[in-house]
Amino acid sequence: MNFLEEKILADGNIKQGNILKVDNFLNHQIDVDIIRQIAYEFKRRFKGKEVTKILTIEASGIAIAAIAASVFEVPVVFAKKAKSINIDGSVYCVEVESFTHKNISQVIVSKKYLSPDDHVFIIDDFMANGCAMNGLIDICKMAGATVEGIGIAIEKGFQGGGDRLRERGYDIDSLAIVESMDATTGEIEFRA
Amino acid sequence: MNFLEEKILADGNIKQGNILKVDNFLNHQIDVDIIRQIAYEFKRRFKGKEVTKILTIEASGIAIAAIAASVFEVPVVFAKKAKSINIDGSVYCVEVESFTHKNISQVIVSKKYLSPDDHVFIIDDFMANGCAMNGLIDICKMAGATVEGIGIAIEKGFQGGGDRLRERGYDIDSLAIVESMDATTGEIEFRA
Repeated sequence: MNFLEEKILADGNIKQGNILKVDNFLNHQIDVDIIRQIAYEFKRRFKGKEVTKILTIEASGIAIAAIAASVFEVPVVFAKKAKSINIDGSVYCVEVESFTHKNISQVIVSKKYLSPDDHVFIIDDFMANGCAMNGLIDICKMAGATVEGIGIAIEKGFQGGGDRLRERGYDIDSLAIVESMDATTGEIEFRA
Repeated sequence: MNFLEEKILADGNIKQGNILKVDNFLNHQIDVDIIRQIAYEFKRRFKGKEVTKILTIEASGIAIAAIAASVFEVPVVFAKKAKSINIDGSVYCVEVESFTHKNISQVIVSKKYLSPDDHVFIIDDFMANGCAMNGLIDICKMAGATVEGIGIAIEKGFQGGGDRLRERGYDIDSLAIVESMDATTGEIEFRA
């Protein structure tokens, strides 16, 4: 069992509706020591790959992506939800359904910040059904950029998003893959 | 002129409507070297102050706050806009008007993550009229936490939010205070 799986067992909470709450260390209050360990583990696992840019989606992916960008020594771009008046009209735009929020958002990245020269490492804190990740991959395709890999802190394996992307050939590294969890008993089983 | 003022002059863009676009290094694509310099400068300026927690607001403040938390070696909490089903009912909640997005959001922090024992350093990427900052201060008051200081990357001084908070006695350190800017000529004047 790795550091993140241990942390999830110690501090995570399972709620009805397939929700794993880790808001005490990952996505509301952030334990920077854990985030740094995640960033260095991504760096170790993606050693030797060319990465020119890290891409994530607001909001909760930003903390991990920023610390990881500092470790990888590359810029990080975060895709924005909904249109801000501070973004030029010239953007890549996809629609993404949120498992957490039960809504559909437009997600945009300025065309200035992704190009065919970019080798992108996509990072997010969670993967469930993979909708957000599919959106970010589509944005990379629109830009002609290469997706070198995908780094996820916690994948909810039983929701299938990660495996569907693996079948499509993407190099996905999830530091903790939850195979099953039980809100009644509090038990969590990780993929070996 | 400091590193951030130089970066703004080199890479910032002034748009009609008092908008300073720095989305190529601060709030869409993020230059991690600049963010690290900002974090270390906050640490230097707030040396000797007791800080137990960094507080920011999603989304664009998270990158600076996460890197700063890593430098300060304390947890970071980010206030969330709108109610997520992943947050318990037990939250501090304020309403904040966004200058950028021209709307009003409910901003929440779980009561678990701020307490009377906390000495809070509030961080954000931008301050204009100070609405977001007032909201975060109000949340600290609700929690009984002490606001030790406020660190801002770029303050739009001519919009008055920072000076109104200084008059109320808050220790605000803005690394670049824009006194005036002209969308026609592209000129930016910083507070000395």
